Amino acid sequence: MKTAEIIATGNELIQGEVTNTNATYISQELVRKGLSILYHTTVGDEVVSLGGAIERALERADLVIITGGLGPTRDDVTREAVSLACHRKLVMDKEALAHIQNLFRCRHQEMPESNLRQAMLPKGAILIPNKIGTAPGFCLSLPVDGEGREGLTGKEIICLPGVPEEMKGMFHEWVIPHLERLIPKKRHTLLKKIHIFGLPEALVGEKISYLMSPEANPKVGTMVHEGIITLRLQAEAEEEAKARNMLEGAEQEIRQLLGEAVFGVEEENLGDAVASLLMKHGLTVAVAESCTGGLVCDLLTNVPGISKHLLGGMVVYTVKTKALLTGLPEESIEQIGTVNPEITKLLASAIRERTGADIGLAVTGVAGPTSPHPDIPVGLVYIALATKGKCRDRSSDLSEENQCTVKEFRFSGTRKWIKLLAAKHALNMVRLNLLELERACV
Amino acid sequence: MKTAEIIATGNELIQGEVTNTNATYISQELVRKGLSILYHTTVGDEVVSLGGAIERALERADLVIITGGLGPTRDDVTREAVSLACHRKLVMDKEALAHIQNLFRCRHQEMPESNLRQAMLPKGAILIPNKIGTAPGFCLSLPVDGEGREGLTGKEIICLPGVPEEMKGMFHEWVIPHLERLIPKKRHTLLKKIHIFGLPEALVGEKISYLMSPEANPKVGTMVHEGIITLRLQAEAEEEAKARNMLEGAEQEIRQLLGEAVFGVEEENLGDAVASLLMKHGLTVAVAESCTGGLVCDLLTNVPGISKHLLGGMVVYTVKTKALLTGLPEESIEQIGTVNPEITKLLASAIRERTGADIGLAVTGVAGPTSPHPDIPVGLVYIALATKGKCRDRSSDLSEENQCTVKEFRFSGTRKWIKLLAAKHALNMVRLNLLELERACV
Repeated sequence: MKTAEIIATGNELIQGEVTNTNATYISQELVRKGLSILYHTTVGDEVVSLGGAIERALERADLVIITGGLGPTRDDVTREAVSLACHRKLVMDKEALAHIQNLFRCRHQEMPESNLRQAMLPKGAILIPNKIGTAPGFCLSLPVDGEGREGLTGKEIICLPGVPEEMKGMFHEWVIPHLERLIPKKRHTLLKKIHIFGLPEALVGEKISYLMSPEANPKVGTMVHEGIITLRLQAEAEEEAKARNMLEGAEQEIRQLLGEAVFGVEEENLGDAVASLLMKHGLTVAVAESCTGGLVCDLLTNVPGISKHLLGGMVVYTVKTKALLTGLPEESIEQIGTVNPEITKLLASAIRERTGADIGLAVTGVAGPTSPHPDIPVGLVYIALATKGKCRDRSSDLSEENQCTVKEFRFSGTRKWIKLLAAKHALNMVRLNLLELERACV
Repeated sequence: MKTAEIIATGNELIQGEVTNTNATYISQELVRKGLSILYHTTVGDEVVSLGGAIERALERADLVIITGGLGPTRDDVTREAVSLACHRKLVMDKEALAHIQNLFRCRHQEMPESNLRQAMLPKGAILIPNKIGTAPGFCLSLPVDGEGREGLTGKEIICLPGVPEEMKGMFHEWVIPHLERLIPKKRHTLLKKIHIFGLPEALVGEKISYLMSPEANPKVGTMVHEGIITLRLQAEAEEEAKARNMLEGAEQEIRQLLGEAVFGVEEENLGDAVASLLMKHGLTVAVAESCTGGLVCDLLTNVPGISKHLLGGMVVYTVKTKALLTGLPEESIEQIGTVNPEITKLLASAIRERTGADIGLAVTGVAGPTSPHPDIPVGLVYIALATKGKCRDRSSDLSEENQCTVKEFRFSGTRKWIKLLAAKHALNMVRLNLLELERACV
């Protein structure tokens, strides 16, 4: 098994309402397993054109992965299209049926009759369980018993749902182990992603320029997504250990060149980086959010095990809640103003003291689209960090007093974009503070 | 000219490093112009497979749009692949050459010889100017003069660069006016999306099944994204007003069939739906989040203008913050437990009373991946809603007492998925409550 083709079905894809991110994810994973991807094909929810696409894919690739069209409604036609392309009839799969029935039982709902369609699989197919949704996937190895079309020996079709969360879970739990059994490892391709925050992309490019030659091994490429710069490293070697060593060497070099701007590798995000530093040092944080409106806490609480380290969060959108948190009268808050360094520091100190956290974080700003104050521009954001100054004080002459620092940022873009950048910079301030503490404590 | 196929070329696409958003953009634009899109195809930077993809596309579609592969380096093979597929030799285009030379002159740089390749276009092609980059596009109408392959009369190939900013500029300035000249406006295609939450997809499919026949006009299809079911309506008519009326009629029918499960249209999400009801009735909400960890507030604060209606949010992850909010001693909280109907109701009532909001919302649960208590499964979530019972009391015999309801949910999936479903169900509970209030007040 060497070559693969990915087919996505859905009118919403073919008409441009949804972007086909499933093909991106699956390609990445297949490349990691050493497969070459020949084509991505997208077709509408139409059984003849989908069937035709499957036939062509089977002619040119060893493995065909199809996403979408496994739902219960009549525009879900992948089962029928596979049946058509491989000359295999559809039969009721008892395991699939039991799974769907069970899911409805757990939800205390009656199963609509049309869900029965989802348990019809091409004869000889193996069920791929879906833990989240009703749509089971399946894998069909060709030919099983002389039934069906000729000339497809050893070829395989894997069908997965189109909902990315369901598809990814099933890919990870079923497809990857399946492929590992199937494909003997010869040449080893290892990939690594290194994530960077807080430096301009051009500067990153200049600093690591000599690593980016097309002939280099590991190959290094850059990509930018939601404010994060990611370096993609791809190492090839005959032995896995060697490829791994090459990646590690390159990572060390990059970390030396870029310093603390490197915050994580692989699937780590800024929330993970902050969480692991908090966990490592047994420290706690609490957050008061005005313009980010809960996003900082949301990003932190995506990390399992954060509960012991996130002592609390408040969304202090109004003057009243700002007063409630700081203990100041509402008039004083109005006098100070709601978007400035002063109020941000007050909020950071207050949330720290109220919750007893080691670190208090506060964000104020104007996410837009319009500003409530003529002299405060959309995109102006303040982030304040209140700390006990604990460890640092022991190793220096600093007093035992609490520390509170504040930074000003000017972002531009949509409301969601400004919220996102503000939240990421807030997490990054906590991260840099924890790294500083780490150095001071050594 | 009725049907189109979109081909994208690039190793970075086929290997999953970059997602093909060009196909999304181009499809949207072509649908608007009344074309049907049959296929999207993605291939690597390899002249034979790209040439083959172009040949197949020309067999099945009237218009083939290709993005990528127009750069100056040796892995840019679109010009050669078109030449191969259409049996047209490449010739130097003087206008293209002048454009590239001029661009380098403006940059005060010498033109590398490899840029000459970009001025080689298939014989008979018309240049499509690129104002941003060096890669000119081109349009080839088949056949021009009996040269080249047979059976392609009236078909057309348009080649554009892969860089989205360049592609979009050229599409907007050249391709759209070109298509408008080519396609006489006869039929109007209008689209509408209708969003549904809280019903199983199969049940939605059953209820509106008679609207989903492939021959229906408007055509109705379903898709599911992050727990939301979306119906896609596509109406075709000779007059735009008629298509619009058809969409409106179908929407009314769908709303009657599905009732309050319909929460929005087009780009509206659950946060928007809740926000607009709050704004309409001048009501306020406050949120206490345990397992959703700020996500409910984040979704609400994505809506501009929500600040007057979201009086505050607290992330009550710990026993301490739960005690702080409810005013109960920590021991009592531990006695009650942190994931159950009782504590959830207490939190909802407390956040409402503390902030003076009309509605208090609270979420507790276990987002996983593991549970802190052996008898509380991952995915168990409680959502409570505390209201003043204002309006409702006036129109009924209910007492003036505050109302507090709680619901139990069992979700399965990853931590982020459970958080997302819990947050959406929480927003939906607020929405349904506001709709109930609306009915009671009428």
